[in-house]
Amino acid sequence: MTQWKLAQRAERMNPSVIREILKVTEKPGIISFAGGLPSPKTFPIADFARACATILAREGEAALQYAASEGFPALRQWVADQLAKQSAAAGVPWAVDPDQVLITTGSQQGLDLVAKILIDAGSTVLVETPTYLGALQAFTPMEPVFASVSSDDEGVMLDDLRAKVAGATGARFMYVLPNFQNPTGRSMSPKRREDFVAAAAELNLPIIEDNPYGDLWFDEPPPAPLAARNTEGTVYLGSFSKTLAPGLRLGFLVAPKALYPKLLQAKQAADLHTPSFNQRVVAEVLKDGFIDRHVPTIRALYKSQCEAMLAALDQHLAGTGITWNRPSGGMFLWLNLPAHMDAVKLLPMAVEHNVAFVPGSAFYADNPQTNTLRLSFVTASVDQIKIGIAALALSLKAAL
Amino acid sequence: MTQWKLAQRAERMNPSVIREILKVTEKPGIISFAGGLPSPKTFPIADFARACATILAREGEAALQYAASEGFPALRQWVADQLAKQSAAAGVPWAVDPDQVLITTGSQQGLDLVAKILIDAGSTVLVETPTYLGALQAFTPMEPVFASVSSDDEGVMLDDLRAKVAGATGARFMYVLPNFQNPTGRSMSPKRREDFVAAAAELNLPIIEDNPYGDLWFDEPPPAPLAARNTEGTVYLGSFSKTLAPGLRLGFLVAPKALYPKLLQAKQAADLHTPSFNQRVVAEVLKDGFIDRHVPTIRALYKSQCEAMLAALDQHLAGTGITWNRPSGGMFLWLNLPAHMDAVKLLPMAVEHNVAFVPGSAFYADNPQTNTLRLSFVTASVDQIKIGIAALALSLKAAL
Repeated sequence: MTQWKLAQRAERMNPSVIREILKVTEKPGIISFAGGLPSPKTFPIADFARACATILAREGEAALQYAASEGFPALRQWVADQLAKQSAAAGVPWAVDPDQVLITTGSQQGLDLVAKILIDAGSTVLVETPTYLGALQAFTPMEPVFASVSSDDEGVMLDDLRAKVAGATGARFMYVLPNFQNPTGRSMSPKRREDFVAAAAELNLPIIEDNPYGDLWFDEPPPAPLAARNTEGTVYLGSFSKTLAPGLRLGFLVAPKALYPKLLQAKQAADLHTPSFNQRVVAEVLKDGFIDRHVPTIRALYKSQCEAMLAALDQHLAGTGITWNRPSGGMFLWLNLPAHMDAVKLLPMAVEHNVAFVPGSAFYADNPQTNTLRLSFVTASVDQIKIGIAALALSLKAAL
Repeated sequence: MTQWKLAQRAERMNPSVIREILKVTEKPGIISFAGGLPSPKTFPIADFARACATILAREGEAALQYAASEGFPALRQWVADQLAKQSAAAGVPWAVDPDQVLITTGSQQGLDLVAKILIDAGSTVLVETPTYLGALQAFTPMEPVFASVSSDDEGVMLDDLRAKVAGATGARFMYVLPNFQNPTGRSMSPKRREDFVAAAAELNLPIIEDNPYGDLWFDEPPPAPLAARNTEGTVYLGSFSKTLAPGLRLGFLVAPKALYPKLLQAKQAADLHTPSFNQRVVAEVLKDGFIDRHVPTIRALYKSQCEAMLAALDQHLAGTGITWNRPSGGMFLWLNLPAHMDAVKLLPMAVEHNVAFVPGSAFYADNPQTNTLRLSFVTASVDQIKIGIAALALSLKAAL
């Protein structure tokens, strides 16, 4: 029988912890705060149906044919215009050239492409503490050494950043998610952004800025992207998964012109191009200012669900020594349990109470804080949130 | 200004030669035999329109949500059933379990995943002579050493296979495209398949079998897949790009159960999953035997176009010392020019005559045969083929 010999990098790949957890939580009747699934109520199904019909009737042959690896021109233009508009409104103008925009098969693919062109085996990659699990999974096959930079409520801590850069021989980049971070829900403060960008420039440290949640603010938009402040030193990743729908797998990146050709070559080798049909359908949906009418409805829904979750946490867990943050947007919030508690061990007990979460330890490149957990407030309804948090509180208090 | 340091593998990535050539050939009025674009006349646009409407009306929320990395169950089942049916009809039963099927974002992504889990820097990868350029591009970022195995009209030559395996320390796999190969259009003979599979098993050499064109036979279906004869030693790659439409980016692979989990982990890290909407739409189109009604129309069209091209070549180039093969399916045929001629130098002259091809040298991992070129007979109509081949013959005879 043929023996397959695996590449070294394959030995480092592991099943997604979250994926395995989600399997456990698939039992009927469970209220899950575990997954990061946008509320399907927000999907503009009728608009997609109209756009599919229009595209197939008007330009079916082109929409179903092979297409350029860079992406559909009208969609690249929309991304450039939208980022320029948002950055200008946030006070830091950013002149995005559509030629810098690469359409990707979800923003996850952007992480894969960045990893391929920037990480050698043994390269140091800096990440936040904690950080997005999907980024760790995308980077890991290229065999980096991760260095976790300490973070506080305002974001990356600059003293530790300097120490970690000094301790590495040529860190390739730092990966940051400045707005409503996955997993914590926290955002980088305006002052910290300014200082972080300045420090990165001074340290000659490239930045990979991931912004899937930036549009999901509750009361006011986040500050301008880091990329707007450091255009040549930042690759910016964005997504349509949270503002339209994830099932189309449409994301994008904006790269400095010096880096773009290599990302494009990696993209071409990875899947030739992102589905042209999906790109044209989304460009059709987005024209005429659709996003400005649609996203406010998502914001209002998620804000109401976040408030319901915070109210329920206040009601059931105040004074227990368990603490949590109050996100100003996004999809997640973060609980800190007393130091002796291990969220991995608590999960089966919660599942017995018909409620699920993700243990925080999944989100650390090293030295996991086992007494943390992530709650999503977007998938469950307000009524489910009330019931689910009451159940979660019961199981946590039983363990206290 | 921030200095980006590229990974070593990025230095080995290059712009696609074909891509650059296609740019040259984009001048208006040119008849292009260069690209590998399926005839858009074959795209079942009305069926897609009906399926999009049905899916969005019936299961819009699920179709637009995140989904499993393995792929949509009904589509995996369809693939397993179809392969089992075809293999049985070809006399080599293959019991494909849907759990072995991984839906990919085009079969190009299958090549990327295979490369990630099987190739270390410096690993030997065996390829045909010539071979599919997209496979070279997908494998190259993982920094293999390519070894080109000599091929004749029946496929891979086994003496050279044994020599190349003996000369390498642990070749990771051999990549083959047995049916209507890209670029040559040739197929592996039944006897050669049997001997190749036996030799690979004896040499402990895994096989990556790529079969995007197998359904495009003119008069009789090709022999059963190599994978049917060596289920544990072969990863089989397939595609919907040539039988339905490439713009949906839908392909699949079938892996031995021992290898599947690593391919799945690589898939998840690469783009989480292939667009769930596209998978459901295609599963809807495919139900009730659609492929058995649809693909015969593609076969008939491509056969007529291939015959037109062969007739025009006979008419204009017989007796010139230029030779070509007579494919029994697929999309391409292959010209051999007299040894002193270089197709790369001939291309600009052909473009002046308003006709384009791909120089064969693009398809060799090493030692390119510069006196070869690839012609696609599927994109241009019969009338365009007559005009285009006459023009090509003029420019070639001028250079003789």
